[in-house]
Amino acid sequence: MEQNGVRIGVIGATGAVGTVTLALLAQRGFRHVRAYASSRSAGTAVPFGNDTLLVEEASPEALAAGELDVCFFSVGTATSRELVPHAVEAGALAVDKSDAYRLTPGIPLVVAGVNDDAVSPGDRIVANPNCSAMQLACVLKPLHEAAGLVRVRVATYQSASGAGAQAMERLLREPQAEHDLRMDWDFDGVEFDEEAKLRAETRKILELPELPVSATCVRVPVLVGHAEAVWVETEEPLPPERARQLLGAAPGVRVEDFPSPRLAAGRDEVLVGRIRRDPTVESGLALFLACDNLRKGAALNAVQIAELLLARRPLAA
Amino acid sequence: MEQNGVRIGVIGATGAVGTVTLALLAQRGFRHVRAYASSRSAGTAVPFGNDTLLVEEASPEALAAGELDVCFFSVGTATSRELVPHAVEAGALAVDKSDAYRLTPGIPLVVAGVNDDAVSPGDRIVANPNCSAMQLACVLKPLHEAAGLVRVRVATYQSASGAGAQAMERLLREPQAEHDLRMDWDFDGVEFDEEAKLRAETRKILELPELPVSATCVRVPVLVGHAEAVWVETEEPLPPERARQLLGAAPGVRVEDFPSPRLAAGRDEVLVGRIRRDPTVESGLALFLACDNLRKGAALNAVQIAELLLARRPLAA
Repeated sequence: MEQNGVRIGVIGATGAVGTVTLALLAQRGFRHVRAYASSRSAGTAVPFGNDTLLVEEASPEALAAGELDVCFFSVGTATSRELVPHAVEAGALAVDKSDAYRLTPGIPLVVAGVNDDAVSPGDRIVANPNCSAMQLACVLKPLHEAAGLVRVRVATYQSASGAGAQAMERLLREPQAEHDLRMDWDFDGVEFDEEAKLRAETRKILELPELPVSATCVRVPVLVGHAEAVWVETEEPLPPERARQLLGAAPGVRVEDFPSPRLAAGRDEVLVGRIRRDPTVESGLALFLACDNLRKGAALNAVQIAELLLARRPLAA
Repeated sequence: MEQNGVRIGVIGATGAVGTVTLALLAQRGFRHVRAYASSRSAGTAVPFGNDTLLVEEASPEALAAGELDVCFFSVGTATSRELVPHAVEAGALAVDKSDAYRLTPGIPLVVAGVNDDAVSPGDRIVANPNCSAMQLACVLKPLHEAAGLVRVRVATYQSASGAGAQAMERLLREPQAEHDLRMDWDFDGVEFDEEAKLRAETRKILELPELPVSATCVRVPVLVGHAEAVWVETEEPLPPERARQLLGAAPGVRVEDFPSPRLAAGRDEVLVGRIRRDPTVESGLALFLACDNLRKGAALNAVQIAELLLARRPLAA
């Protein structure tokens, strides 16, 4: 199908992920794009390539009236739960970035290039994973195929943009002397929901429902780009040189000596480096990842999912 | 011995650690304190309590002329190698923060409260550990005594002040949008010297020369306070509640729900929290630490070491 003909809605168009989604759609030559946001932002304009789009209110009626083929949702979980069904009922494919549908049985949770086969032609909703799970899955997949994952430990260094545009503005206003590590997620008394998501989503994406994963999630005062220090144990020994080759050949992954958020920002690949033996165990590796959480971690993966879907199923008449 | 009578030299008095050392000495009632720094800073003044001290040039002759009982060195490794022997020859006890002597056999590497017994009355040089190893040892010691350490993995979140006063000034000038994670240590092709130090010093402090340790060290755009995400495996099972009790009773350690650099800054204790099972193994814990790298991680521990030494040996006549 000719991309230019696809009618697209970006819901949450004024947010951190929505803004990048619009930029990627413009770059890729999509032309029929409408922008939606909450009533507060309705009536404002957002950039779209060299042009601007009028922001419409994201209501069930507006989405139905938009006659959309694909809707990208980058809104809160409650708003996704409310609006996604309306978009689907009106005939659109919904690619949802919230955690409303990520763990719902029967709804695919997709990292393009990692588990494309999870998408079927009949799917009307596809969930876009948490940005931390996304980059981890990109790197774990080839390692698992080569040597079998036994257990995974990950400490994250997540940027302000993962918490949205307001968190970015807060960081830009905060005096440097007040910067701190933060843990701005819901806590159940043992772990943050972010840590539980990272485990559950990694398991679903890799189709390893019992994979042991221990995560410590931390927000760092960096604007864009999430990093992760990862320890992986494998069934078969996997020398670092072999892991480096495998990762260098993996889709959407790029080997760098010293990945960092600024190096990853604005780039499409997950950067992986510091690939070395974990000397504390027989078959283990230590790695360091960085990824633009707004691109592959969010908007880019959403667009890639839509491209997968568009390639596999005819649009509604 | 009456503290007020002890004659002290602070070498590197204008640096990040030297400044805090002077503040701690003033608070603790030490009165005979002289400040030394490179020829560039000689002649300037540094704060000492409500007073100021004239900065003298740190030359072998000046240190000998100072008739010092205790010298605190917070200078580069090369400068320590040059000056420490002169101070010792002139009769002073040297407490050295550089890595010149940390791994030298026969020279104690001391975390006060953790391995005080490593100090003997005849010691003339005592090494002050790397700030990352220091806070880790404070937390590992009680866990090892209770359950036996099998292996340790640690991802660090180290602040700018660990790289000195100039790095702090750089961070204060850097636009927030340019903040990044950095790895500003020497690299041997596999790991940073900071990671090798963390392993080697932890082993020496805990007297566990074979302890398997895998570290990933990262600098974060935070001014003061180092944090660490730690995974520990033990020989005996150690339930999180028991670990929490042990750590709550450990000297210089304080249990907090969510340790962070800003919470640790200006405080004497190592903060530890997020104490939970590592569900990927039979007997494992995950923890998160934060510590003021300039206090317990450096200046405070140096002063505590000197207090240990002064309590145990008569000063030179």
